[in-house]
Amino acid sequence: MINVGIVGATGYAGEELIDILLRHPDVKIVNLSAKIDKPQNISEIFPKLKGKIAIVCTQPDIKEIISKCDLVFLALPHTVSMEMAPSLLSTGKKVIDLSADYRLKDTKIYTQFYKTKHKDKINLSKAVYGLPELYRAKIKVAQFIANPGCYPTAGILALAPLVAFNLVDLGSIIIDAKSGVTGAGKKVAENFLFSEINEDFKAYKVDIHQHTPEINQELSKLADKRINVTFVPHLLPLNRGILETIYVKRKKIPASARGRCAFGARGGPAFGGKKQGLISLYRKFYKKESFVRIRDEGDFPKIKDVVHTNFCDIGIKDSSDTIIIIAAIDNLLKGASGQAVQNMNIMYKFPEYTALL
Amino acid sequence: MINVGIVGATGYAGEELIDILLRHPDVKIVNLSAKIDKPQNISEIFPKLKGKIAIVCTQPDIKEIISKCDLVFLALPHTVSMEMAPSLLSTGKKVIDLSADYRLKDTKIYTQFYKTKHKDKINLSKAVYGLPELYRAKIKVAQFIANPGCYPTAGILALAPLVAFNLVDLGSIIIDAKSGVTGAGKKVAENFLFSEINEDFKAYKVDIHQHTPEINQELSKLADKRINVTFVPHLLPLNRGILETIYVKRKKIPASARGRCAFGARGGPAFGGKKQGLISLYRKFYKKESFVRIRDEGDFPKIKDVVHTNFCDIGIKDSSDTIIIIAAIDNLLKGASGQAVQNMNIMYKFPEYTALL
Amino acid sequence: MINVGIVGATGYAGEELIDILLRHPDVKIVNLSAKIDKPQNISEIFPKLKGKIAIVCTQPDIKEIISKCDLVFLALPHTVSMEMAPSLLSTGKKVIDLSADYRLKDTKIYTQFYKTKHKDKINLSKAVYGLPELYRAKIKVAQFIANPGCYPTAGILALAPLVAFNLVDLGSIIIDAKSGVTGAGKKVAENFLFSEINEDFKAYKVDIHQHTPEINQELSKLADKRINVTFVPHLLPLNRGILETIYVKRKKIPASARGRCAFGARGGPAFGGKKQGLISLYRKFYKKESFVRIRDEGDFPKIKDVVHTNFCDIGIKDSSDTIIIIAAIDNLLKGASGQAVQNMNIMYKFPEYTALL
Amino acid sequence: MINVGIVGATGYAGEELIDILLRHPDVKIVNLSAKIDKPQNISEIFPKLKGKIAIVCTQPDIKEIISKCDLVFLALPHTVSMEMAPSLLSTGKKVIDLSADYRLKDTKIYTQFYKTKHKDKINLSKAVYGLPELYRAKIKVAQFIANPGCYPTAGILALAPLVAFNLVDLGSIIIDAKSGVTGAGKKVAENFLFSEINEDFKAYKVDIHQHTPEINQELSKLADKRINVTFVPHLLPLNRGILETIYVKRKKIPASARGRCAFGARGGPAFGGKKQGLISLYRKFYKKESFVRIRDEGDFPKIKDVVHTNFCDIGIKDSSDTIIIIAAIDNLLKGASGQAVQNMNIMYKFPEYTALL
Repeated sequence: MINVGIVGATGYAGEELIDILLRHPDVKIVNLSAKIDKPQNISEIFPKLKGKIAIVCTQPDIKEIISKCDLVFLALPHTVSMEMAPSLLSTGKKVIDLSADYRLKDTKIYTQFYKTKHKDKINLSKAVYGLPELYRAKIKVAQFIANPGCYPTAGILALAPLVAFNLVDLGSIIIDAKSGVTGAGKKVAENFLFSEINEDFKAYKVDIHQHTPEINQELSKLADKRINVTFVPHLLPLNRGILETIYVKRKKIPASARGRCAFGARGGPAFGGKKQGLISLYRKFYKKESFVRIRDEGDFPKIKDVVHTNFCDIGIKDSSDTIIIIAAIDNLLKGASGQAVQNMNIMYKFPEYTALL
Repeated sequence: MINVGIVGATGYAGEELIDILLRHPDVKIVNLSAKIDKPQNISEIFPKLKGKIAIVCTQPDIKEIISKCDLVFLALPHTVSMEMAPSLLSTGKKVIDLSADYRLKDTKIYTQFYKTKHKDKINLSKAVYGLPELYRAKIKVAQFIANPGCYPTAGILALAPLVAFNLVDLGSIIIDAKSGVTGAGKKVAENFLFSEINEDFKAYKVDIHQHTPEINQELSKLADKRINVTFVPHLLPLNRGILETIYVKRKKIPASARGRCAFGARGGPAFGGKKQGLISLYRKFYKKESFVRIRDEGDFPKIKDVVHTNFCDIGIKDSSDTIIIIAAIDNLLKGASGQAVQNMNIMYKFPEYTALL
Repeated sequence: MINVGIVGATGYAGEELIDILLRHPDVKIVNLSAKIDKPQNISEIFPKLKGKIAIVCTQPDIKEIISKCDLVFLALPHTVSMEMAPSLLSTGKKVIDLSADYRLKDTKIYTQFYKTKHKDKINLSKAVYGLPELYRAKIKVAQFIANPGCYPTAGILALAPLVAFNLVDLGSIIIDAKSGVTGAGKKVAENFLFSEINEDFKAYKVDIHQHTPEINQELSKLADKRINVTFVPHLLPLNRGILETIYVKRKKIPASARGRCAFGARGGPAFGGKKQGLISLYRKFYKKESFVRIRDEGDFPKIKDVVHTNFCDIGIKDSSDTIIIIAAIDNLLKGASGQAVQNMNIMYKFPEYTALL
Repeated sequence: MINVGIVGATGYAGEELIDILLRHPDVKIVNLSAKIDKPQNISEIFPKLKGKIAIVCTQPDIKEIISKCDLVFLALPHTVSMEMAPSLLSTGKKVIDLSADYRLKDTKIYTQFYKTKHKDKINLSKAVYGLPELYRAKIKVAQFIANPGCYPTAGILALAPLVAFNLVDLGSIIIDAKSGVTGAGKKVAENFLFSEINEDFKAYKVDIHQHTPEINQELSKLADKRINVTFVPHLLPLNRGILETIYVKRKKIPASARGRCAFGARGGPAFGGKKQGLISLYRKFYKKESFVRIRDEGDFPKIKDVVHTNFCDIGIKDSSDTIIIIAAIDNLLKGASGQAVQNMNIMYKFPEYTALL
């Protein structure tokens, strides 16, 4: 049994963490804090929790948190996390940070997209990018996890097999992403009012969204080449869920090479032009994964298939020069709190799916 | 052709006024103002207006408004209107106030419900309550209109025939009201965020809503007796529309009186206990009205029947001791801006339905 | 470990039963059936279930069901259940019927509201009405449960203390109910299309809904007097959840009786007139209940507080002659499948909240 | 004053046509028909029309329609239109067909996508594709209009300037389209039920939608080269509106050609590499158009900007190799009935915007 604290307990990710952890047999929530006017029982803030948990949520008190917790989830806005993480880490606490502060390894890019200097380069270098499907071995032994962004989680999982096996034109990747409203956090602003979003749909931060460099960083690492994706996010009039429709050009293989290997220079598996080609490849790539489900040919995920689950569902259209991949996740689960708990489970050798099925 | 100004042009009621007035052949919008950081073209604030109107919206400038406008719509939050109305009225301008500031004749009740002292009792006594179905003659000659609240418009129209003809137990009136989100105005607050309201439904200000005394005032006047209704508003997860389900006990008629008159002392029309009784009564009561539609027996309005119209639709269940009346309006039209333009049409002898069909 | 089957597995209640039972440590789902064109894996019908369950859903095969199951959930339309229940019951199987077929003890009323003759009066007399808060002792030893309707569950729980203690005018009860769309089941009809319901709100079956006699039957039993409530259901543009706003007149106590007992003849607890009166009464009444939560004064439940939970939340306004009670449940959980599992837990002596928290 | 009939008056496009034409000063609706069980007043079918129109909607009666109407709108499902159009056209009536039956000039492609043989090749060759921005001159003198599909209207308008001036790699066009639910017509099927679509989002007919060949046909004509776009439509949980996010690669200009002409062989206007390049081009291209609005740099349309209007709003991101174009229309107006009335206005020399502003 481990003792955990949640800083930022009143936001959407914090609320979701409480929900998940209350079902976790090996975890006890011992501290809840957030930026609030005065201490209040969490079950008054979220009346649905009445009778299930009765902890008073306070302003974060670092000493208290350190004295009580084995592991701390930081469900904070970016730039706030990096003010709190160092003192927790220095006392040896395990920390899973759901903000963007420790995801981008290049602090110049961090500054460019988050409009502030990075204040904690030391821990930045130690932070493990918490995408279990790519970094499980490192997560197992990590003290500090930078939990991935919601858009990047779906985008990277959807593209990893193609990029890792060098099957596509790396300059051609287009990610048309659509997210439910909780993806933006609980922002009190006119453009997040019900009447503004209901019955509307729009693109935003067109090709300048801060998750673009995160996707680029991880795909570039997989490809071992610099990749710049075109990424356009859109806002859906619904609460939860992300669906990304991804377009990428199949790599042209010189005629001379075709006889030898179906997918070119880096030596992808030779399952040659067959109809089920890419779908089989994806299934092999994610064979051991509990939370990635690959659809049959002609079948594509919708948001409802993954909402309130920790799954990432992926469908692939593999019949023409432009490969189309559709990936769906729940932005609050696989895209945030679910993945954070998945990381915790790996760190503590709990079965990876505990509290997540 | 008259020149009009709108103060509070960037709120929901202001936006709707612009939409309506752009279709009005006898009106020219000459001034738009609102509490904004810096002057901005209204078609930048509402991109849907591009190519239709190109007036710069500024902070309200009383002198400018007075010099340009024949009539001014005040689409302001309550307490703000009564700071602006006096100077407009003193120069002889016609004013239609969509706020609550001049609706309640009793300033003690105003203070009780709006938590502030009334600052303009002189004009309060002059203001005509702008419900055309009850006060058309006064509106025709008025300089100053207090445009009714959205809930009261539907509630009063739904109950007026019963109350006026003294057919019901005046102590038994229950109004269970449900409104779309624009009814509350464009309030930037956490509980109006999309994710908070979407997929939710709740009662609020249970039996303490500020529209209660407005309904009581008007029904009491009709009955010539003090009436206190039970009024519970609820918030619907949709943009526009109000539906009120109203329950009222049929008046018990002493056995001795039954032979003479079906509906007792105040001399209601003797259309006796017949099946179509109340429906016929309502149709007679509203015979000359363009914007009240009475449903056939067993047929009840839904919000879609009235959204984007200036109609108030009313259905009546008249088969047991408890009479059930269901009334629907568009809160931004018959419940606010549409009714305001209807009042303007009456004041200027334009056909009453101009720009409203 | 018990083996259960679900007949009607592809409807909303069936889908929800699968979700709940997959989390239940003492239950194994062994048979899924429904009216379907051809056998299909349940995880193809509901892709969200992929990787969690892989049973082929077929047309119901009574012999197969009997040979495999200890308990069968019937999540069927009314009139269909009573064709299937007898053969299951005659072999000694435990059955929980989620349809309306065995709820109304008076078959004349059944015929009046469901437009068909009742075909199984023998089992009707054996069926226990599965509202644990009122009938737990009977449920414990029952073979056959008639699981309550969604509207009646909220309405009866909201009114039971007042009616049982004879505190109100029994002729004055008005239930203004609002339900999400899944309450109607998966009906393929024009008026349930997305574009018809979205951005709309309406009353339906005004005072003639088939749940009215079910509420009347149970309240009358509690009061030991015939009660006829006024019941008007409305359709909310959201997926899940019911909120009922209930109005009831406080019983008038003859002046002569006031000194002796605050609540009159049937001997309610004499907590006389104090501010917290009714709220305290409700808390005592439901003291031992896991799934009824009574709000503090001035606090009322909203649908979000109970969605995806098995709770019934109740708020009470106790300050004037008209008592207002607001109750909220998730129509698919406490209003259907959650309550069905609660009943199963009671029948098998599992902790009552298993798989429901 | 012209007399018009609407066949298919009870669908979404028919309903919208009635709304528009009731505001049209030069049009009288004289006949309404649809596939209905028995004749019914249109204001009973759509209660919002009560008091505005009182025509009985019947089964289509060709003789009656011919005897009464000057122009007929066919708002019918595809394959039904081509059974009705010939007899209307042979009597000299003007016809505007909102179905897909007369849009595709190649009947083989029609058969491939609509799964039926074309039955009226004679009139197919006469039909003018009713996109005023491209075919106004032909529409002016046409008897018969094939009104464009909703997705094609937005897609073609968004791409026409780029394709006409040969500025882009014609093999690279990707259209990621999102539509509200009315785009599919009033289909009574399980996957269009409220609970299925609400809080969900999905792609459908991935790269095989029947609007693909319509877009290809028109763009190919503009380019004078065969174009095959990649087209993926998605279903939004809202009633009205289409937003298309379009990705296309800028044409690479050989270094040797750069000095002479900025945009290559076909002689596009030489407005060189300047920042506002494409936006200026679009503004020139649509200079005389009432219903196309081009956004400033960095500004993109959202669905709310065009809903309930006949506008097509277009925003362009012109800063990298991948040009991003975002176009929005109301699928029922510019995407169907609004455009149909625009065509009628052109055919009868009414001001093009009559009843559409």
